[in-house]
Amino acid sequence: MTDLTLDPALDLVLERWVDVPPERVWAAWTEPRHIVRWFTPAPYTTPSCDIDLRPGGRFRVVMRSPEGEEMVSEGCYLEVTPGRRLIWTAALAPGYRPAPAPTTATDFPFTAVISIEAQGQGTKYTAIALHRNEEDRAHHEAMGFHDGWGKALDQLVTLMRGDALGS
Amino acid sequence: MTDLTLDPALDLVLERWVDVPPERVWAAWTEPRHIVRWFTPAPYTTPSCDIDLRPGGRFRVVMRSPEGEEMVSEGCYLEVTPGRRLIWTAALAPGYRPAPAPTTATDFPFTAVISIEAQGQGTKYTAIALHRNEEDRAHHEAMGFHDGWGKALDQLVTLMRGDALGS
Repeated sequence: MTDLTLDPALDLVLERWVDVPPERVWAAWTEPRHIVRWFTPAPYTTPSCDIDLRPGGRFRVVMRSPEGEEMVSEGCYLEVTPGRRLIWTAALAPGYRPAPAPTTATDFPFTAVISIEAQGQGTKYTAIALHRNEEDRAHHEAMGFHDGWGKALDQLVTLMRGDALGS
Repeated sequence: MTDLTLDPALDLVLERWVDVPPERVWAAWTEPRHIVRWFTPAPYTTPSCDIDLRPGGRFRVVMRSPEGEEMVSEGCYLEVTPGRRLIWTAALAPGYRPAPAPTTATDFPFTAVISIEAQGQGTKYTAIALHRNEEDRAHHEAMGFHDGWGKALDQLVTLMRGDALGS
């Protein structure tokens, strides 16, 4: 795995211990059937998800607001280290092609790094968003990065604990 | 290696057979001491080059015009398959961080794919530039992609054949 250097002025970090084993967290992040059940904080939903799990492959989610407005988020995987780390970026389209230029200030590209580590009976979970500049970081924070990604993680935990017991 | 899908409307391709073995072409592309001697078509020069040869690592070259104007090109490696394929992009800064937004129409990001394959006594060499859209492709072509990359490749061949015999 590539060493990544964080910059507190540019990056946002969510770090938590969760009561789900690492392989279940990995499954939650890499199987569309799970993603559609936890990815967007309620009352938003995730009607569909496409995953081609390899460097250069597609990660695409459709999100829907309570009013029925749909937003598509598409990116490209950069690193797939099973059970350990998943990296993708919205700065590239699938196949490593540069993504279209953003059209609004809130449409900035970021790179996401999900790190997973066994700790006790659960997982040390770290989600990092890397930004181009301080404005993009500030926008992302104001849009509710910590609250939104935290609530989604709560949903992941509820789902994958239930899954472990049931389905 | 990841399968890449080309799009003739968006991509530029230079394909040639060269009289240099694959391992010498790979060395030319991955060692700064070689890059500074062939990368920019004369009378442009390449005063310096930084390479951190791993996915997520830095590829940075400084180019200088005959008038002494310097241009810096910085990107991030995406794939490093020794002797076979090298991919980097200007859409990402080193460490997978999204690159700053372009400031001019000719400052568009592209992803470069250098493929190397043994053929006869030499190498089948393919250089591909992937663009966001047709305008960027047209800009790149008008800036002299085929001529410029072709001349640089001639310089690579001259250098690495000499190298093979001499130093």
